[in-house]
Amino acid sequence: MTSKLAPLSASKVKISVRPENERNQPIKNEDLIFGKDFTNHMLTVNWDNKQGWHAPEIKPYGNLSLDPSTCVFHYAFELFEGLKAYKSLKNEKDIIMFRPDKNMERMNKSSDRICLPTFESEELIKLIEELIKLDKDMIPKGKGYSLYIRPTMIGTSEGLGVHTPDKAMIFVICSPVGPYYKTGFKAVSLEATDYATRAWPGGVGDKKLGANYAPCIKPQLEAAKRGHQQNLWLFGPNKNITEVGTMNVFFALKNSQTGKKELVTAPLDGTILEGVTRDSVLALCRENLDPAEWEVNERYLSIDEVKERAAKGELIEAFGSGTAAVVSPIKNISYQSEDISVPLQEGKQSGKLTEDVMKWISDIQYGITEKANWTKVF
Amino acid sequence: MTSKLAPLSASKVKISVRPENERNQPIKNEDLIFGKDFTNHMLTVNWDNKQGWHAPEIKPYGNLSLDPSTCVFHYAFELFEGLKAYKSLKNEKDIIMFRPDKNMERMNKSSDRICLPTFESEELIKLIEELIKLDKDMIPKGKGYSLYIRPTMIGTSEGLGVHTPDKAMIFVICSPVGPYYKTGFKAVSLEATDYATRAWPGGVGDKKLGANYAPCIKPQLEAAKRGHQQNLWLFGPNKNITEVGTMNVFFALKNSQTGKKELVTAPLDGTILEGVTRDSVLALCRENLDPAEWEVNERYLSIDEVKERAAKGELIEAFGSGTAAVVSPIKNISYQSEDISVPLQEGKQSGKLTEDVMKWISDIQYGITEKANWTKVF
Repeated sequence: MTSKLAPLSASKVKISVRPENERNQPIKNEDLIFGKDFTNHMLTVNWDNKQGWHAPEIKPYGNLSLDPSTCVFHYAFELFEGLKAYKSLKNEKDIIMFRPDKNMERMNKSSDRICLPTFESEELIKLIEELIKLDKDMIPKGKGYSLYIRPTMIGTSEGLGVHTPDKAMIFVICSPVGPYYKTGFKAVSLEATDYATRAWPGGVGDKKLGANYAPCIKPQLEAAKRGHQQNLWLFGPNKNITEVGTMNVFFALKNSQTGKKELVTAPLDGTILEGVTRDSVLALCRENLDPAEWEVNERYLSIDEVKERAAKGELIEAFGSGTAAVVSPIKNISYQSEDISVPLQEGKQSGKLTEDVMKWISDIQYGITEKANWTKVF
Repeated sequence: MTSKLAPLSASKVKISVRPENERNQPIKNEDLIFGKDFTNHMLTVNWDNKQGWHAPEIKPYGNLSLDPSTCVFHYAFELFEGLKAYKSLKNEKDIIMFRPDKNMERMNKSSDRICLPTFESEELIKLIEELIKLDKDMIPKGKGYSLYIRPTMIGTSEGLGVHTPDKAMIFVICSPVGPYYKTGFKAVSLEATDYATRAWPGGVGDKKLGANYAPCIKPQLEAAKRGHQQNLWLFGPNKNITEVGTMNVFFALKNSQTGKKELVTAPLDGTILEGVTRDSVLALCRENLDPAEWEVNERYLSIDEVKERAAKGELIEAFGSGTAAVVSPIKNISYQSEDISVPLQEGKQSGKLTEDVMKWISDIQYGITEKANWTKVF
């Protein structure tokens, strides 16, 4: 958008606080359900193409009131992010956000792709901090517990013409959440899916748009009917593996001749979501794994290669990666009515690398280990 | 959904009328802008997975109030239809809807694809009739004028989990509209687009989902920068022509050896919207064109074939088809920096067939000619 429009400015925020006696109380850790309960306040920032970004508002959590012709209801002018804030396990007063700059960068790419306005990332991070501080009593404590933050942008133009929205809104809501796997990892079974396609070249599969989500529910229900939790999305004539459910996916392979191991995930070719957890897994594996023993590659990997390597005993681990679960171990892939079994550790629900990756990342998220520029502490 | 849930039932409708003194007055024909003004009432019907369809409500047009975690804002659980009601030019008391059964059939296919509830088509048509009758003074009169009807369905589940919505809403709003081309046809210039892809096999391009629309705005702006009104969407290694902008597309070709003419549009292979106007064009051309002179084919047509045939003087016409404009003549296609010129009639902005098709369809829509089962008159 043009430089004459007002930028997003955290310093202009207007805060109206929910009266103490109307507030929701913190929820007990054991009662938390992902994305069902929200904190007492939300952030909204309106934009229009004449003024630019209006003054941000932090106010009591409540309904949005929109004309039924608003473009978000008709043409999917909508995108979102998901990130978390953690109570430090080292210093309980510290709240830690994990790589919020990466989420803001991606959010701006998503909005640009569907002609919604871009914004100043640092300013939205400051506003999210303000919002979280106001509701900090609702951030649950303990490993696995966190505050899930959902920045969202919607087009708010009224009228049925299909064109660039002249109005938009950022809103941010926050939900206290517990561990994805309440009783430790639970490895999942996948159905390799080629009849439905999540994303394609020249499409929008690399952006976090609402448009990428609704179409994936029906194939998931189909897989569930046959006993599988998620789809392993394949693409193209070579049936390359792209993502799993709404996560990126990693495979660990071992060359039985040389003994050398390889961690593989799909390259960012425009069909793959640029996962913050994906990026973190790659970076930490490149740092922590012995290069004499491991290669870490972003390359195409076909389901047929996985099948062949599994038959030779060369498939050693597989896991999904994403903000909600960090890593999600895989135990089985159904492909053309055959099962490809993925090894787990004896008596456990994950492989060793999956476990290590989980620890490396969550130790940073909870302030147990430090990693420069990966956390925002306040 | 299961048969124990309540079906959609028009007889349960609750009607609350906007007080006379608060009503919008009919808009002058010359002041109508597509999809900007709405009638005084709207229809809403809620659904949940315990009860099924609730009692429909016809009530004053007004805002929707939704929790910010509602799934329509995050995961694009949304779909719509577009159809029109016309004041008969033969008997002014008659209101004519054009093939509403086709729109309802497609709307049910769209909702099924993203796990929103299906509904009884005939009941929604009855409810739309009720709604229109209440605001019939706002249907503009005269050829080219009509009431645009926008049935919409959104997922209204609250919470951030990505799953089948447990709540949904149909709403219908109506906008009085004028002719798409106020001063007769205006032929458009297209940019053949292969760097961005509208739809893909295994995707949802054949459904009228919000998800298909927002991603197409940026390529349109890119084409506009280079002086073209719309994208001509190509697909695959052969660069087959699929759609134009948000319309289906037809090409008329003439074999210079045999003199035989052919009308071509893309086949319904899952990447093409099942346009009601597309179907009507095909049916009327098959009925009205002399088979000794014309073939009407649903087949793949590559941009390279169009280019070659144009060079031989065999490209005779091209037009888009859709509810808003009925037909939209094409005068030029830019492909790999070359222009493919599409003939128009001397001193006119369309070809002869385009003009004929426009007349055949609009004569039915305005009650001048009759076509069994294609209109609903009330």
